[in-house]
Amino acid sequence: MNKDTNNTPPSGGRGAGAKLQVCLTPALIPLYKVEDYIVVIIDIFRATTSICYGIENGAEAIIPVSKVEECSAYIEKGFDYLLAAERDGEVVAGFDFGNSPFSYTKEKVNGKTIVLTTTNGTHALHLSRMAKKVVIGSFLNISSLCNWLKQQQDNILLVCSGWKNNFNLEDTLFAGAVVEQLKNEGFKIDDPAIAANDMFGLAKNDLNAYLSKTSHSERLKKLGIEKDIAFCLNVDVTTAIPVLEGERLVKLKL
Amino acid sequence: MNKDTNNTPPSGGRGAGAKLQVCLTPALIPLYKVEDYIVVIIDIFRATTSICYGIENGAEAIIPVSKVEECSAYIEKGFDYLLAAERDGEVVAGFDFGNSPFSYTKEKVNGKTIVLTTTNGTHALHLSRMAKKVVIGSFLNISSLCNWLKQQQDNILLVCSGWKNNFNLEDTLFAGAVVEQLKNEGFKIDDPAIAANDMFGLAKNDLNAYLSKTSHSERLKKLGIEKDIAFCLNVDVTTAIPVLEGERLVKLKL
Repeated sequence: MNKDTNNTPPSGGRGAGAKLQVCLTPALIPLYKVEDYIVVIIDIFRATTSICYGIENGAEAIIPVSKVEECSAYIEKGFDYLLAAERDGEVVAGFDFGNSPFSYTKEKVNGKTIVLTTTNGTHALHLSRMAKKVVIGSFLNISSLCNWLKQQQDNILLVCSGWKNNFNLEDTLFAGAVVEQLKNEGFKIDDPAIAANDMFGLAKNDLNAYLSKTSHSERLKKLGIEKDIAFCLNVDVTTAIPVLEGERLVKLKL
Repeated sequence: MNKDTNNTPPSGGRGAGAKLQVCLTPALIPLYKVEDYIVVIIDIFRATTSICYGIENGAEAIIPVSKVEECSAYIEKGFDYLLAAERDGEVVAGFDFGNSPFSYTKEKVNGKTIVLTTTNGTHALHLSRMAKKVVIGSFLNISSLCNWLKQQQDNILLVCSGWKNNFNLEDTLFAGAVVEQLKNEGFKIDDPAIAANDMFGLAKNDLNAYLSKTSHSERLKKLGIEKDIAFCLNVDVTTAIPVLEGERLVKLKL
């Protein structure tokens, strides 16, 4: 069902049996030998969206950290970094901005290094750091990302950052959207990828309407960031692919 | 989407806000405070199907264990139990039968206690044992189970046993089928429950066809147990609800 195939041969030239898998929450990352995969980190509302937008807009690097205190430590070290941290939807006092993608415009971030506080996304990144490569995905850069993934000769693991180590719909839907673009490329796909792709099939005509039923969306609405949510669902408005180098996310050189 | 509601008031009389949640794999059980829930254990291919069928057919008790050695230990202790264990689809030498639900007929199990070796299901049961109550679900007893759940005043957690701690489609589909029967009963449902229910909506007209695309199904087919799989998808052929008492699964007294 929804598994239409065509006869196009794989374009990446990879051998039969390369895997395309979906890890539904960071708690499941230890089940994978990440060393064998290119990992795509997904945290749609809003970390990976903001990261894609910031790197597209010329940020030199984005450093994701888990805690506001870690973020502050970069000031104490005397670095000239922009600091982004929110608590309960408000910019933390003394910080440059919060987690809204609208903060990551060219005017604000071009040539800068930004330290971004994000709990779920940082957790997923940390657990994936031994992967062959760690790149960042969002609806903003999806086709650029998928075109690059098609050219790789490796297993691909789409890691949903989820919510407090558990499953969420928005990250899974994005994983399903990536599977949609890659499923006729000769990859061996697993059960979570099938499920994510089927969910995307249900939701794709109106992602916002589909996601409006989630608890997370409710939470974000209470924070008054509906505009952020709508922005996070924009498809193919950027082409940069952020890649992890050490602790820094920078623009992948294509 | 697929979230049709009606105006029927909740029949269980529970207060607003009781939760109906889906735990997609045993690895995620620690994220829930199981003490606050009635837990339903799901291992469709084939443990919970066989357990429901065995209890329906008069088994006095079924004791799930993880390892063949634990199973053997019951003989050494001199108990007159039936022992069920398989490796690679074959009954282990010296055991009474394997994991096929067809072994759990009235002729074989009536009045008997059976020790059943099942890795994924036992793992899920073990991690859920502190719940208010632990009951067993399968397509065989789904409506009987759901009718009972509707009458409870508690939070409900549907625990998918999955495959080696990860997500599988068949257990998630069953969770979605339970959500389908309970979603208009006033429960607060979470993202995994929404996802499971939507997947069930896609699959419900032909569960077997939907599941034929899973890797697990491939694996089971190689074992030559297509008949077992078809049997596991029979809906409402039993009414008994197995419940955990100590280490033993027995028939819930209604």
